[in-house]
Amino acid sequence: MSNKTYLLGGYQTDFIRNWSKENKHLMAMYQEAVEGAMKEVKIDPEEIDVAHVGNFAAELYCMQGHLGAFFVNIDPAFRGLPTSRHEAACASGSIAIMAADAEIEAGRYDLACVLGVEQMKTVDPAEGGNFLGTAAWYELEGKDVEFPFPKLFGQLGDEYDKRYGLKYEYLAEISNINYSNARKNPLAQTRTWYMNKAHACLQDDNNPAVGGRVRISDCSQVTDGAAAVFLASEKYAQKWAERNGKKLSDIPYIKGWGHHTAPILLTDKFEESKDNEYILPHVRSTVTDAYKRAGIADVSGVDGIETHDCFTTSEYMAIDHFGLTKPGESWKAIEEGVIALDGKCPINPSGGLIGAGHPVGATGTRQVLDCYKQVTDTAGDFQIKGAKNMITLNIGGSGTTSVSFVIGVD
Amino acid sequence: MSNKTYLLGGYQTDFIRNWSKENKHLMAMYQEAVEGAMKEVKIDPEEIDVAHVGNFAAELYCMQGHLGAFFVNIDPAFRGLPTSRHEAACASGSIAIMAADAEIEAGRYDLACVLGVEQMKTVDPAEGGNFLGTAAWYELEGKDVEFPFPKLFGQLGDEYDKRYGLKYEYLAEISNINYSNARKNPLAQTRTWYMNKAHACLQDDNNPAVGGRVRISDCSQVTDGAAAVFLASEKYAQKWAERNGKKLSDIPYIKGWGHHTAPILLTDKFEESKDNEYILPHVRSTVTDAYKRAGIADVSGVDGIETHDCFTTSEYMAIDHFGLTKPGESWKAIEEGVIALDGKCPINPSGGLIGAGHPVGATGTRQVLDCYKQVTDTAGDFQIKGAKNMITLNIGGSGTTSVSFVIGVD
Repeated sequence: MSNKTYLLGGYQTDFIRNWSKENKHLMAMYQEAVEGAMKEVKIDPEEIDVAHVGNFAAELYCMQGHLGAFFVNIDPAFRGLPTSRHEAACASGSIAIMAADAEIEAGRYDLACVLGVEQMKTVDPAEGGNFLGTAAWYELEGKDVEFPFPKLFGQLGDEYDKRYGLKYEYLAEISNINYSNARKNPLAQTRTWYMNKAHACLQDDNNPAVGGRVRISDCSQVTDGAAAVFLASEKYAQKWAERNGKKLSDIPYIKGWGHHTAPILLTDKFEESKDNEYILPHVRSTVTDAYKRAGIADVSGVDGIETHDCFTTSEYMAIDHFGLTKPGESWKAIEEGVIALDGKCPINPSGGLIGAGHPVGATGTRQVLDCYKQVTDTAGDFQIKGAKNMITLNIGGSGTTSVSFVIGVD
Repeated sequence: MSNKTYLLGGYQTDFIRNWSKENKHLMAMYQEAVEGAMKEVKIDPEEIDVAHVGNFAAELYCMQGHLGAFFVNIDPAFRGLPTSRHEAACASGSIAIMAADAEIEAGRYDLACVLGVEQMKTVDPAEGGNFLGTAAWYELEGKDVEFPFPKLFGQLGDEYDKRYGLKYEYLAEISNINYSNARKNPLAQTRTWYMNKAHACLQDDNNPAVGGRVRISDCSQVTDGAAAVFLASEKYAQKWAERNGKKLSDIPYIKGWGHHTAPILLTDKFEESKDNEYILPHVRSTVTDAYKRAGIADVSGVDGIETHDCFTTSEYMAIDHFGLTKPGESWKAIEEGVIALDGKCPINPSGGLIGAGHPVGATGTRQVLDCYKQVTDTAGDFQIKGAKNMITLNIGGSGTTSVSFVIGVD
């Protein structure tokens, strides 16, 4: 990297909220996240040089485009600010961070605000499920399919089963861990919900299958939410550290990143990887690129993971793709308690997409913010003791766009 | 800038085409532009490091998101390529170039393909006009308004009239020049259309008002189209120049850029600028930033302009904001023939958005491609003799997001 990009923290809205029921426009959520982040991180509006917004499909959910520009309406000091919006389906938040990070590395700006935002509870679940189909190849994988994404990620489970065997109890345990962790996260959507492994193992009227082997308990939530983070050059981070009584070496930074895209159709992905030990090889290379850029050999170099568990099958895939086990043996890490909050490498201490919630365009920024909390020992009840390095994995489509960040302190 | 970003050319689809009538999916247009660009610029798929896509609202026009990822489907060599989509309404193409440029400056990649793409003729004009309303604040400026954008840019004309006086004949001449230039552009949508100043001056059944003083002849077109360009590091540009028998010094590069955002509501913009000599001061600073970064004092440092004439009023605004005249005196440059194809500083030799067409997300990349053609003396019948430096202005919303590039050779 030409210049280090520091991470100064941020703000997440409470993912339990339903903004439509509160009669609030997308802009209200947007504004709360940006103003909340400035207050939390002690940054004045005049200091922000550039704003990047990650959002999947406000055009469909809220009949609103041009989301970057709304930043300017928050404060008179933002008039003239360069803004833009970035999209890669459920990886939109990470793509926005990528764009901001590149600009800071290039020396264009010193302080960027990156907002991920999505308001999804504007429509009924069936219509929302249809909108999500536009993250796949809509005409071929989404159109006239009820809830296309549970079905696609059900097929990912089928592929694991075919190649390596997959017992449902492991998916149920992934669900259980995410729900359990979410109970410790005061911003998690499901923190008051009832779910445990026994319940997830039941397939009944309360927990019907919605996509092959994928049941309700295997699914991430439909969520309204936003999360904003600040990215800074060394110059700004130094100044900010001094005035907040910190040392620059205490400030987390983006140690490494990975970014790759697989063929959009899930069947093409499986065909491509049929002779590969990894079912989604471009997810694997995204993660190993992030390790490499961060100067760490493998997953043993991080203290925990915030991964994309849009479904339990995606987390099951993530376990071996991160290298916690050999390919196809993700079940071992689950059985041995490796990924539990008190395990060797906790996954989703926040509760992840299943427990914390999945406001699509905000998930990538929420993951990075939760990693910031972990490495600055400010994650409260879901803190991983002594965490210094964390890694994210944010996925758009059926394993199509993958982005990973290593966030840490030295 | 930390590293120079070179421009190697690209490819534009014929903007006269109606891809829905050809029964072709957005993906067909996308693929033609990328494959056309590789062929035209003599680049193998294996050489491309990263792809960026500018698109406004395929979610609405084509029920398809995640457009970055479609790149991978074009060629097996693209499997794993990092991709993303960028949006800032009608400035989406330029925002995609900004993102690619930052990554090259940061040293992340050596060769980026930037595609701008939009398929708009999938819906009737009224529905399309409604979709365009999402580039403004939809609930406040777009909802229940028939054709919101002609009305907003009609108000821009009203504001000029109020502050400085504005005779319709100057708007008619802007229309005339764009249509005339388009006749020389073999890829322009209106190249076979009939329109001259006398015709534009008529307000009748053939040329009705659609938004206050804005008549049909003042409007850019509803267009299907894509334009792809290649951006390269010095390392790749040097290699490419050698194998194509060129010198590095012959290759155009991005000499400077500007990027600013104004408050999203048009009334807020006018209120903000009421004591300013420029009606849209953030458009002005976008242009002057581009001059400054390019190391040129003012508009005399460029040989021509490709500007955003979504309506004749936006080009009228651009004339004084580029500094071709004092604020409010754009009419002088029109009257004196400055902006004609054989004038001192031709505007839109391509025909611009009115003549060449306006596939929203592709306009920014099309502008940059046409500037590339000018400074490499390959613009054919619409060539500005001896052009070495060109500048673009691409605008999203009602003057909300502005991006400008100076493209030139030394």
